[in-house]
Amino acid sequence: MTAAQPLPPLTPDEEALARALPRVIYALPRMLDADLMREQQLPLIEYMTLMHLSEAPGRLLRMGELAIACELSLSGMTRIVTRLEGQGLVRRIRCDEDARGLNAVLTDAGFARLRQAWPSHLASVRRHFFDHLGDIDVAQLGRALGCVAVAEGRCPGHE
Amino acid sequence: MTAAQPLPPLTPDEEALARALPRVIYALPRMLDADLMREQQLPLIEYMTLMHLSEAPGRLLRMGELAIACELSLSGMTRIVTRLEGQGLVRRIRCDEDARGLNAVLTDAGFARLRQAWPSHLASVRRHFFDHLGDIDVAQLGRALGCVAVAEGRCPGHE
Repeated sequence: MTAAQPLPPLTPDEEALARALPRVIYALPRMLDADLMREQQLPLIEYMTLMHLSEAPGRLLRMGELAIACELSLSGMTRIVTRLEGQGLVRRIRCDEDARGLNAVLTDAGFARLRQAWPSHLASVRRHFFDHLGDIDVAQLGRALGCVAVAEGRCPGHE
Repeated sequence: MTAAQPLPPLTPDEEALARALPRVIYALPRMLDADLMREQQLPLIEYMTLMHLSEAPGRLLRMGELAIACELSLSGMTRIVTRLEGQGLVRRIRCDEDARGLNAVLTDAGFARLRQAWPSHLASVRRHFFDHLGDIDVAQLGRALGCVAVAEGRCPGHE
């Protein structure tokens, strides 16, 4: 595309989809957070932190890796982990290979907390998101959204 | 569903879609904002504010309505409008029917700024979002996402 060839505007269907995006971007995280807070007294970001740690080898991640997984800054991630550590759900330990680095480790109590909260969160995700998809091809949509905002040429979902 | 009948876990395809959602929730707004800042020196939230005002009758909205449209708190919205007012793109005027209320009005300069930024934003939305959708039915997806996180029974898109 050159400057001499302006893009066509969005079609009405594209326009409607673009206007629906804030439901996913803003409303969905708020709803999921509100459900987890009400039913499990656990903020969504703390749930996501426990979840990412639970899936890592040894239930352990470097703080920087955990921040990227949770889409937080390192200082934001440190705040969350400090709160989780105060509840005994996570511990921070020095990296073996880098004395300045810190790892976050999920404790047994943290894993139990995640398992306890999981059914609530699953129901909430189904109710607020999946139940609205009707007969949309979930696999196809997952591949597409996995490429959204990925740097050009970097998306594994594109053939 | 009763407590005695727990929900089935997500299928692998649903799981993949759930894991792709942060691309839309976190990465997409960051990319759109970065493009607008680089190409137009205009933050995404200011663009959205000008856009919502441009579509309102008389290019005017009450501050509370504008905050809801932009998914911001009233104090957050006030900060943005103050910044736009400083650039001459928006004016605040008292409501006729309620002396305590304030309306935000788009100025001609604000409308010109929006028109100038629009092609950049359109290209950015196409590149980071629509170009990844392949042959997904955009109308169907728009109807589905328009219902995400809407209070039960309130969604016009559901038959």
